Amino acid sequence: MGKTKSIVTLLTDFGTEDGYAGAMKGILAGSQADIQIIDISHNIERFNIRQAAFALINYVFHYPPKSIHIVVIDPGVGSERKGIVVELSDQFFIGPDNGVFSFIYRHGPFKAYEIDEKSLGTHISSTFHGRDVFAPAALKIIEGKLPSQTYPEIKNVISFYENYEEESESDYILKVIHVDHFGNLILNYTRSDWESFSSPGNIKLQIKHCFLYGIKSTFSEVEEGQIIATWDSSGFLQISQYRGNASHLLHMNVGDEVHLKIERP
Amino acid sequence: MGKTKSIVTLLTDFGTEDGYAGAMKGILAGSQADIQIIDISHNIERFNIRQAAFALINYVFHYPPKSIHIVVIDPGVGSERKGIVVELSDQFFIGPDNGVFSFIYRHGPFKAYEIDEKSLGTHISSTFHGRDVFAPAALKIIEGKLPSQTYPEIKNVISFYENYEEESESDYILKVIHVDHFGNLILNYTRSDWESFSSPGNIKLQIKHCFLYGIKSTFSEVEEGQIIATWDSSGFLQISQYRGNASHLLHMNVGDEVHLKIERP
Amino acid sequence: MGKTKSIVTLLTDFGTEDGYAGAMKGILAGSQADIQIIDISHNIERFNIRQAAFALINYVFHYPPKSIHIVVIDPGVGSERKGIVVELSDQFFIGPDNGVFSFIYRHGPFKAYEIDEKSLGTHISSTFHGRDVFAPAALKIIEGKLPSQTYPEIKNVISFYENYEEESESDYILKVIHVDHFGNLILNYTRSDWESFSSPGNIKLQIKHCFLYGIKSTFSEVEEGQIIATWDSSGFLQISQYRGNASHLLHMNVGDEVHLKIERP
Repeated sequence: MGKTKSIVTLLTDFGTEDGYAGAMKGILAGSQADIQIIDISHNIERFNIRQAAFALINYVFHYPPKSIHIVVIDPGVGSERKGIVVELSDQFFIGPDNGVFSFIYRHGPFKAYEIDEKSLGTHISSTFHGRDVFAPAALKIIEGKLPSQTYPEIKNVISFYENYEEESESDYILKVIHVDHFGNLILNYTRSDWESFSSPGNIKLQIKHCFLYGIKSTFSEVEEGQIIATWDSSGFLQISQYRGNASHLLHMNVGDEVHLKIERP
Repeated sequence: MGKTKSIVTLLTDFGTEDGYAGAMKGILAGSQADIQIIDISHNIERFNIRQAAFALINYVFHYPPKSIHIVVIDPGVGSERKGIVVELSDQFFIGPDNGVFSFIYRHGPFKAYEIDEKSLGTHISSTFHGRDVFAPAALKIIEGKLPSQTYPEIKNVISFYENYEEESESDYILKVIHVDHFGNLILNYTRSDWESFSSPGNIKLQIKHCFLYGIKSTFSEVEEGQIIATWDSSGFLQISQYRGNASHLLHMNVGDEVHLKIERP
Repeated sequence: MGKTKSIVTLLTDFGTEDGYAGAMKGILAGSQADIQIIDISHNIERFNIRQAAFALINYVFHYPPKSIHIVVIDPGVGSERKGIVVELSDQFFIGPDNGVFSFIYRHGPFKAYEIDEKSLGTHISSTFHGRDVFAPAALKIIEGKLPSQTYPEIKNVISFYENYEEESESDYILKVIHVDHFGNLILNYTRSDWESFSSPGNIKLQIKHCFLYGIKSTFSEVEEGQIIATWDSSGFLQISQYRGNASHLLHMNVGDEVHLKIERP
């Protein structure tokens, strides 16, 4: 017999010290269902939708089917922005429709539904939809009420993922889409993008005035302090300084450009 | 059949990086009972009893009956300060009697008991009562030994909640009792205080040299950057800057005064 | 009937905001086994193996037998450093062999095994062994495959614990091995070291130009602001400032020396 436990993960910019994330967990823990509540983070930088959007792809695909991922980075709470449930890869994503699921949408076909707040039967404050809308919406799913049976489907969702620019068949302009905790620079180019060519060819990167040849498979192929390009653990092209902080060293941040040249035989 | 799981929440100023909160969780996880351990925060500012007191009211009332809330902000550990268990709203609160439950005490009738450390049967260090007293006291309750059967009741507990001052029937001096993670200023005046009058009247707030008219129901009633008064998600009067930080903008902090004038027809 | 739940604790330097710790939790939560995942900390200072090594002894011995403790402070990931499983006190420790278990090794006989990555049957990235090696290694143990049956035993592990220096029978040079969240200075001298003499004698500490006489049993034996020596909650000699920060006050940090003189009758 398999487990009947439901998994709900939480990603917010609430911090923990006001007890707001604790309130959401109370709503979930109070259910009669057996729910495993998993804190991903409550330390997303305040209102930083992009940071949350990137974090999501690092964890959600390691969760089992039927997992529910709640994301509350919600500067527009109380405005007209929609609350949505997204179904993708047999998992559920709940949060505001403000672009926080931009990276997720690239990972396969999905359906999006607009949460009907009235159907939740709870008092809804104007400032705390994590507690009053998104956690109750998760409970609905756990009770067996599928979004497709409960809410209207919507066709347009907000996404800000920016594809790399193709200047020619071998020249691309990439952008830094994320700087992680270790100062690694994540670029909008994936291993799948590269492998989509029958003969992928050799990669040359130009980062400001520096050139980097080839993608290494482990950090230890270079000396401590050196700059190195690898595929990150989610498949994105990543610039790192071995045992250092590439973002600080190169003065590079989100939005900065990197030139990619692919040399084919 | 309902769940037989016990819920224990933890709020401390331990940080996480020394493993002290981890030790408390080990004591709870080692029990034969099925306990859902919920981290509220271990990042309360060191020794900041007021911050913890405020955080509590944001989450505890969203937990189901019989939940146990452990709070360890304990600058007086090893002194004569008492360890207590409080019963209120069919929930249990465990921690030092140093005012950390000040806000909770306003939410209904309660009984307080002084923990008899000898009855716990554990070695008790002089510096770590979270692990040696409060977590074991939670296990006692989970084993079915009610505080009323185990410890002496005490009549006086420490509370620092300060009521607003009433200058006249329509003039009040409020104080900032908390500044949250988003810079919102929380005042010692609640929606219930206001609604206790048969005709509540219109609210005018004077914050330094600024005047604010009326309580809005959602942030989106004002423009980005504007100051707005709302009832916060726990019912307190709250001054915010829409998509900004009111505390920084107004140079206001805990203890600062706000004048409230109620205009009745 | 006892619980059949398995306990897995996590200690990392990942931060939470990139979702990397969340990925590890997904691997564990996806198991058919009933696993209680316990976050100890993801805020160990980046690459600070010593901080993690010290944190471990504060919590692991409060966990029940068969608990699994995963530790990922792993600056050498992708290099030749080994991944290991350590059995000690009927518990399991999983992480890189880089000294992170130095303090643990002093707590009793242990066996260490080198994780055979190929036996895990997972794709292993070069940068994220927490997700691809250490979490799957925990699942193997939970499935009942003991390290002794799965991996080769290794005889040498890396440890950096430095014993105090004995200048004479009554003079010792101790070192600060850790500064905790509260600024307490932890020294490499334990209550057991002291009690190993038949007549332990009186302790005199010289910290720079200050002298401290005797070990107190509670903070409240001194006035607020005073310096005090106690045995910490794990048995180490500890220098604190009552309601203050000893590290700041004394300008002392990890590696600094304290002279200990034991006066025997």
